[in-house]
Amino acid sequence: MTQFQNHQIRLASRPTGAPTPDNFRIETAAVGEPESGEVLLQILYLSLDPYMRGRMSDAKSYAKPVEIGAVMEGGTVGRVIQSKHDKFKEGDIVLSHSGWQSHAIAKGDTLRKIDPSIAPVSTALGVLGMPGFTAYAGLLTIGKPKAGETVVVAAASGAVGSAVGQIARIKGARAVGIAGGADKCAFVKDELGFDAVVDHRAPDFAEALAKACPDGIDVYFENVGGEVFKAVFPLLNSFARIPVCGLIAQYNQKLEEAPGPDRLPMAMRDILTKSLTVRGFIQHEFVDQFPQFQKEAPGWIKDGKLRYREDVVDGLENAPEAFIGLLRGKNFGKLLVRVSE
Amino acid sequence: MTQFQNHQIRLASRPTGAPTPDNFRIETAAVGEPESGEVLLQILYLSLDPYMRGRMSDAKSYAKPVEIGAVMEGGTVGRVIQSKHDKFKEGDIVLSHSGWQSHAIAKGDTLRKIDPSIAPVSTALGVLGMPGFTAYAGLLTIGKPKAGETVVVAAASGAVGSAVGQIARIKGARAVGIAGGADKCAFVKDELGFDAVVDHRAPDFAEALAKACPDGIDVYFENVGGEVFKAVFPLLNSFARIPVCGLIAQYNQKLEEAPGPDRLPMAMRDILTKSLTVRGFIQHEFVDQFPQFQKEAPGWIKDGKLRYREDVVDGLENAPEAFIGLLRGKNFGKLLVRVSE
Repeated sequence: MTQFQNHQIRLASRPTGAPTPDNFRIETAAVGEPESGEVLLQILYLSLDPYMRGRMSDAKSYAKPVEIGAVMEGGTVGRVIQSKHDKFKEGDIVLSHSGWQSHAIAKGDTLRKIDPSIAPVSTALGVLGMPGFTAYAGLLTIGKPKAGETVVVAAASGAVGSAVGQIARIKGARAVGIAGGADKCAFVKDELGFDAVVDHRAPDFAEALAKACPDGIDVYFENVGGEVFKAVFPLLNSFARIPVCGLIAQYNQKLEEAPGPDRLPMAMRDILTKSLTVRGFIQHEFVDQFPQFQKEAPGWIKDGKLRYREDVVDGLENAPEAFIGLLRGKNFGKLLVRVSE
Repeated sequence: MTQFQNHQIRLASRPTGAPTPDNFRIETAAVGEPESGEVLLQILYLSLDPYMRGRMSDAKSYAKPVEIGAVMEGGTVGRVIQSKHDKFKEGDIVLSHSGWQSHAIAKGDTLRKIDPSIAPVSTALGVLGMPGFTAYAGLLTIGKPKAGETVVVAAASGAVGSAVGQIARIKGARAVGIAGGADKCAFVKDELGFDAVVDHRAPDFAEALAKACPDGIDVYFENVGGEVFKAVFPLLNSFARIPVCGLIAQYNQKLEEAPGPDRLPMAMRDILTKSLTVRGFIQHEFVDQFPQFQKEAPGWIKDGKLRYREDVVDGLENAPEAFIGLLRGKNFGKLLVRVSE
């Protein structure tokens, strides 16, 4: 029996405001033996996603926080290196939720086999995985874009935003992306084929967004919050839909101390007078649509209608820094850590 | 030909903050002759509703404001006293949108005949009219209460709120009302049969509401805003639905100057982490459900499951004062003006 060294990144302390490297701790532990029904995995890719900021806090949310001292949670793609489950054999590539570590023992029943012939296996964490499905389910079920309508999405070069805009276009809507900086904006417009893109760092951002949406906004897929939301709100048309998927711009803030004026009464007034729909969601809720997504998305990728970009960081030890950068918008495309070859 | 004196209340000026008697002007004008296809109406009842505060302002909304100098808008029940429309004859009772005046000429095609044998004709402006239908459509289409869930509604003794709670109970949900003062609270609990009621004027209002909702809140039918909303928000369960029907507590406020902290980021966080649905609406949108409402509601009234209370003020000249009081919660039940016998 081979003994593997398991490299792990654990939560050392809860951040106040933006996470710092001190909030994480690298540890090395022995890897145990899989029991009956379990497999031993070597992790290939770890997904880094904004929701993880929520897990680092102990505020009440839809999911339990990571305990202090526990391995950070996260979606992973791994290779089976030892199997005691009859559905898996050595060499199989599987999707698991093994967290920030190099090896893991997992119950076979919690795993999904990945077919490497469809697309690179890393896409199971991106465009063909949770972020892509989040875009698909939130946009189509809550946003319900109609042909000719205007769909706006921020973080448009990111894992979720890039899929939102492209799926909106597949459905005949006009996609307007918001991204930070010239490179990302060029990518969104030229590579992803959005109808328009606006740089949220530009001093005239709100005016530029209004210009890019001459017929107003029918769907705003909310994944950032903050200043972008402020610019979007006045442009919303009557009966506009706002799937609320994330609020990355405020994850590091102390919301109870947000300076006035209190914008909630104005927002409620607009919700009333424009008959708006604001709907928070997480993709679990729409899990019955996942088979349909799995049927449709690979064809869109093949046809070049659903493009994606990955931002791959090498080495598990670099995960904390990459994650801290993600919350500042430093990544360019779906952020992944290549844990091993 | 008889010549009638038409007494009218016109908008004299736009209010800043709460309306005052000075914002209205009483005038007397001659009544014209109906042309072909029109009828001459003597108004019996004028409905006074919170939405009228919006029409007095020129802020952008779903409906055009009343012009300065124009007759105030409003729903009315009238008697046909001269008809040049073959579907109406003298003595018919009709629903019209004739506004704050004693007589009106109306196109026959815009009128709905009222059958006085079903219920008192005034109910066409209340429990069987726009307010009752607003409750029905907003609660059932957006709120979607399930048996055993908790539905909370404020202004629970009012035209909309009273129907919301009772229809929630008809659907098997638990109805918790919020009302102002002991008399209204007793009425909501004892006459309307709500499961619980909380007085929003009580110093321990937020705690009392929490106690009245031991399983949290699944549907909050929003028709007031302000302090009530603050107390409700922390009690909302995951997947709660909030039909936004009105915000009477903030209609007189300068929202742009609402003092901080800014509660919008916290509200958005809760919308996200609890997968809430917040949906503004006006009843027009659901007009295709009106026939179904007309079929169901009279039976509920007959069976004592849908009770109502009217607050009738005598004399058109008292409409401004009554309306000003409505915005302060002074009315007790559906507010109507008896314009003539």
